[in-house]
Amino acid sequence: MKAAIFIGPGAVKAGDRPDPVIQEPTDAIVRVVRGCVCGSDLWYYRGVNEHAVGSIGHEFIGVVEAIGEAVTNLAPGDFVIAPFTYCDGTCPACRHGFQANCTHGGAFGNGIIDGGQGEIVRAPSAAATLVKVPGSSFTDEQLASFTALSDVMCTGYHAAVSAGVTAGDTVAVVGDGAVGLSAVIGSRKLRASRIIALSRNPSRQALAKEFGATDVVEERGVDAIEAIMRVTGGAGVDCALECVGTDESIETAAGITRAGGMIGAVGFPTYENFDYKTLFWKNVGIKGGVAPARQYIPELLGDVLAGRINPGLVFDFETDLDHVADAYAAMDERRAVKSLIRMGADR
Amino acid sequence: MKAAIFIGPGAVKAGDRPDPVIQEPTDAIVRVVRGCVCGSDLWYYRGVNEHAVGSIGHEFIGVVEAIGEAVTNLAPGDFVIAPFTYCDGTCPACRHGFQANCTHGGAFGNGIIDGGQGEIVRAPSAAATLVKVPGSSFTDEQLASFTALSDVMCTGYHAAVSAGVTAGDTVAVVGDGAVGLSAVIGSRKLRASRIIALSRNPSRQALAKEFGATDVVEERGVDAIEAIMRVTGGAGVDCALECVGTDESIETAAGITRAGGMIGAVGFPTYENFDYKTLFWKNVGIKGGVAPARQYIPELLGDVLAGRINPGLVFDFETDLDHVADAYAAMDERRAVKSLIRMGADR
Repeated sequence: MKAAIFIGPGAVKAGDRPDPVIQEPTDAIVRVVRGCVCGSDLWYYRGVNEHAVGSIGHEFIGVVEAIGEAVTNLAPGDFVIAPFTYCDGTCPACRHGFQANCTHGGAFGNGIIDGGQGEIVRAPSAAATLVKVPGSSFTDEQLASFTALSDVMCTGYHAAVSAGVTAGDTVAVVGDGAVGLSAVIGSRKLRASRIIALSRNPSRQALAKEFGATDVVEERGVDAIEAIMRVTGGAGVDCALECVGTDESIETAAGITRAGGMIGAVGFPTYENFDYKTLFWKNVGIKGGVAPARQYIPELLGDVLAGRINPGLVFDFETDLDHVADAYAAMDERRAVKSLIRMGADR
Repeated sequence: MKAAIFIGPGAVKAGDRPDPVIQEPTDAIVRVVRGCVCGSDLWYYRGVNEHAVGSIGHEFIGVVEAIGEAVTNLAPGDFVIAPFTYCDGTCPACRHGFQANCTHGGAFGNGIIDGGQGEIVRAPSAAATLVKVPGSSFTDEQLASFTALSDVMCTGYHAAVSAGVTAGDTVAVVGDGAVGLSAVIGSRKLRASRIIALSRNPSRQALAKEFGATDVVEERGVDAIEAIMRVTGGAGVDCALECVGTDESIETAAGITRAGGMIGAVGFPTYENFDYKTLFWKNVGIKGGVAPARQYIPELLGDVLAGRINPGLVFDFETDLDHVADAYAAMDERRAVKSLIRMGADR
């Protein structure tokens, strides 16, 4: 089969990998319909984080082609969304709804496990991992939103859930990437009454507003803190959603959150200087981590199918597997928020 | 009047301070009935944290002797509990119930503002700060519990509230000082089904059990983590209440909390090596800070008056103002959990 191969920093190309086959009775084989590139893939592409040579891409949707004998809740022909990590569904973390921390789980596309940027994937623990989509025919817009549910929409929602956003809250979203934009959707879903998006990019500002942002702050760093304190009448925000992971972004989140407020943290943490004690003295809490996409997909899928949310709009670049390098370059050069990769037939 | 004077590390003595008088229309003058020594006072006594020469002690209860003309909800003769910080009741932090972060607040007994270890206190912002106790005659046991509400019981409760303890939770309390013991009371109040107290001191273990602890773990450090993982069947706890503030205690809390769980942090933070990123990768959150005692006192006072909680049991040493040095020494030498200071008449 054809699949994207991570060769090294700056080098991702379509190549050949062995056709996946059922190895364990709990496996399923999924023909991928859409994959995409994650902001975290860029860290590998840029050489910031290490990645093994081999398969890459952890987000995908597709059609079940075969199942192991222990998989009783799926059948060939089912359309499924894969959360970006697989999970057994039975360990303590899974039972508490934190499947990304599954004792026996792992990530797709880590060099060895098949990646979502490829034609076919062997999905381990398929019964607990894959989420079946009801129906059999979907629009391009729906397919894009399903793909967003594989990771980015769930990750943005996890920021809002972790921060405990509730009806009437004032929320600030730090980061205008696909996760930050999804966090705006998540905040609106949880009925925040005011959602302040931090962005200086006109097209991202427009998308944030379409997703529910009520205010846009263009400033950065200390100036952003001053601006948000000003627009909140000196009170600060109830919840700050940290969707970047740098020292500047977490300092901004810490600086704008009111006494007793919460930071929802989902940005891949690359900060080095953040000291929790600064939050302690403000009575500000922080919670977050790798999103349990498997936990959120069923509910968010219902929102997509009902037309309540449209997270697929974060994709503003599309290509096919042969041009996967373009998908990375477009995001690396900030020409695209997020790149979608089409894989042949829609079903 | 007579009051404890902080002279320097290891030196706290009864001395003379000017009789407090109304300075602002929002002031009240309170004749102190009971004061006590806080674990945080010990940090000054031991020279770990700096303290100005002068008044000391931030916990007290007493009788209102005079009020400024702007104080309309109190009258001379009222019996009151003072939260350990005063607050204006109107700033954004106060309105959100985080009065210890009041923009115009401060702590009693900071060297300049009158301390609770003294005969008389001028209480600023008295209407918003002091909590009136209904009734006019109280037992020694009740007076001890009222004194505990000034800080330590509220601080322990804040750990449980900040961690979001809910009915059925498994909670571990790290720290067997007066705050940790109060956190056991707080966890039971919030209906945790299992409360694991970390203590190797027999009398503190006994008090923890009397307060509601279901399990005691004597191990420390890595051994404590292993022991708690063992008694929770490998799952870890839903909530860890960090009531110490050292590197060892916060590492223990981080090590025992399950994926998606919460740490409630109220120990005065002296840790240097704690890195929030370790919590991020476990999806564990942390929240806490200086307790908003003013927010909690009314509800906890109801519990005390109804006999549902008896936090005054944390006091296992009593003396008077002339022997205040003994009160410190008993705690410093770990002969006492917490020292109560009687100040003349009970009303």
